[in-house]
Amino acid sequence: MINQSINSEIFPKGEKIKSENFIGATWLKMLIPGDTDTGCSVANVTFEPGARNNWHSHPGGQILLVTSGKGYYQEEGKPVQILHMGDAVNIQSGVKHWHGAAADSWFAHIAISPNLQKGPAEWLEPVKEYEEITQNFK
Amino acid sequence: MINQSINSEIFPKGEKIKSENFIGATWLKMLIPGDTDTGCSVANVTFEPGARNNWHSHPGGQILLVTSGKGYYQEEGKPVQILHMGDAVNIQSGVKHWHGAAADSWFAHIAISPNLQKGPAEWLEPVKEYEEITQNFK
Repeated sequence: MINQSINSEIFPKGEKIKSENFIGATWLKMLIPGDTDTGCSVANVTFEPGARNNWHSHPGGQILLVTSGKGYYQEEGKPVQILHMGDAVNIQSGVKHWHGAAADSWFAHIAISPNLQKGPAEWLEPVKEYEEITQNFK
Repeated sequence: MINQSINSEIFPKGEKIKSENFIGATWLKMLIPGDTDTGCSVANVTFEPGARNNWHSHPGGQILLVTSGKGYYQEEGKPVQILHMGDAVNIQSGVKHWHGAAADSWFAHIAISPNLQKGPAEWLEPVKEYEEITQNFK
């Protein structure tokens, strides 16, 4: 069963992301664009069921705060973690990872990007194992 | 009427804050303690109606994401701003400010503290005008 509920009550869903670095429909709302003073941006990201991003890394790290649904987070060489509302993920600089929705659930998280002065995210290849992962975590 | 609802569904309320820098009952849940890699901590802060912090500043700035209730934010020399669920506040480094609940509402926000390597918050005097403010914004 598809869980259609997403937590749009707190932060807006924003605009559909047009990027080759995402698979499936995803939406982005910038809450804080980031500036040279704090060097920190904040966005709300929403994934439809099955949507996820490609492997990538952030030179200044990233923090995720899950606000609704069920999703996955994985660092290269480590097991997949299931994420639920209220979970927080601390991603160290340069660590290759991906995140996205479960196959049967919408998923939304706040993405906090500190240390923007260290440069933009480095985007890599799609997650080959996604279908297999969704089978294992049904 | 006191609005008793607080958004405890997403992030835990945590422990009561014991600090002379807060007036009224407030609660803190650290979601990301911060580390030397990202230099960024994230906490959930909940204020009972009428609770607020003293004037203070952050050497590395701070970002607030309002998750429930109604509150106030003020920078020194500027008008008070009313905050509601979904509002985001970008506080520049060293800017003297305070935040807290309205007199008739609970208030909760995520507090993102980047650039922790720049040092801890500088705590200053209590907000003398709070009672007057709550009269003006009834």
